[in-house]
Amino acid sequence: MTSTGRHFQAGIDELKRELATQGATVATRLAHAVRGLASRDIHALDEVAIGDAEVNARQMAIDDKAFKLLALQQPVAIDLRIIVAAIKVNADLERIGDLAVNTSERVIELNAEPPLKPYVDLPRISARVQAMVRESLDAFVSRDTALASSVVKEDDDVDQLYRRLFAELVELMRHDSTSVPRALHLLLVARNFERIADHATNIAEDVIYYVEGRDIRHAGTKQAPSAP
Amino acid sequence: MTSTGRHFQAGIDELKRELATQGATVATRLAHAVRGLASRDIHALDEVAIGDAEVNARQMAIDDKAFKLLALQQPVAIDLRIIVAAIKVNADLERIGDLAVNTSERVIELNAEPPLKPYVDLPRISARVQAMVRESLDAFVSRDTALASSVVKEDDDVDQLYRRLFAELVELMRHDSTSVPRALHLLLVARNFERIADHATNIAEDVIYYVEGRDIRHAGTKQAPSAP
Repeated sequence: MTSTGRHFQAGIDELKRELATQGATVATRLAHAVRGLASRDIHALDEVAIGDAEVNARQMAIDDKAFKLLALQQPVAIDLRIIVAAIKVNADLERIGDLAVNTSERVIELNAEPPLKPYVDLPRISARVQAMVRESLDAFVSRDTALASSVVKEDDDVDQLYRRLFAELVELMRHDSTSVPRALHLLLVARNFERIADHATNIAEDVIYYVEGRDIRHAGTKQAPSAP
Repeated sequence: MTSTGRHFQAGIDELKRELATQGATVATRLAHAVRGLASRDIHALDEVAIGDAEVNARQMAIDDKAFKLLALQQPVAIDLRIIVAAIKVNADLERIGDLAVNTSERVIELNAEPPLKPYVDLPRISARVQAMVRESLDAFVSRDTALASSVVKEDDDVDQLYRRLFAELVELMRHDSTSVPRALHLLLVARNFERIADHATNIAEDVIYYVEGRDIRHAGTKQAPSAP
């Protein structure tokens, strides 16, 4: 390998590490937001707000690094595909970060009121979704298309859990009007999770594309817009 | 200009045209979804569902074209920035398309019930959001950073309209439990619009970045996660 080639591979490896760090950061922030709901732990929620600047700064640094690798190294084939994938994954992770912040803001409002019901389903969806985010990034870093495919499949389970919780909360609102604001916050938190699962699915699809050069989007397996 | 240079510019121009077509298509589909709500026009809603395959196919074709331009032409500076921007804009347009489909599905459910109230605010938000989508794409095609900046500013107005409608619908649900399912659908339609406005804002920010090489994201002007 030439010195340029080594330099380039080091750049790609750094890009992957940064994305993995970003993925771990947004997954942790999501965990804090949900812990804030279950335990009413206000410190966990503060950490979500504080961490946002870090996520945003890293997002711009990753875009910048990807751009420089494209400009200076003029890569082809899989190296080009991985950098294009990195740019897309980076955008997905930033949206996940935004959704974590939105979730923590909602949890702060929820915690100002008595708990509506034992928050069982939501932490369950949240745990699935956090796992999807971590797995999609692991698949990205290790080029693991089998893991990426399993993430795509998990999205259906999350959609199902979300639909069930959605229907329950609608019933609750219909039968107890005092529950409306809280049930609505819970419903929108659940919807944030469903969106995060979609972003993790996008990441997994990008992994399959960059490793295999095969585009599985819109292949009929994903039913993106059908959840409520 | 060399023959390769002309070939490359023709490729860039084609990429821009395809993105503009995609932008116009998703804005029209959004218009159909909302017309279906106001007029109970079932044909308008059918068109949204039918158009989804076209949007998905064009999305993959645009990604493919951008990728080939990167691989074969090894562009630098602004040419590289425009192709990277095209890849991001393409992803935003695809999400807008998904949100239009989700909106039309909700409208179909709403139309199965008597109208909840005269749907005045929603068409107003929708009109603003459609304009943002069209303007962000116009700015992309014509490298118009002033237009792009005005799109970024409009996002605040949409957030405000959305927050007002949200509060109204919550009040409605609290005081009339029979309104819950319909008010909730309307609320989630409004939230779809607010998300679409965010995607248009992303596109506008990408335009400013690719034209000026300046990253305005997270500069303190955008308050992405603060809407309900």
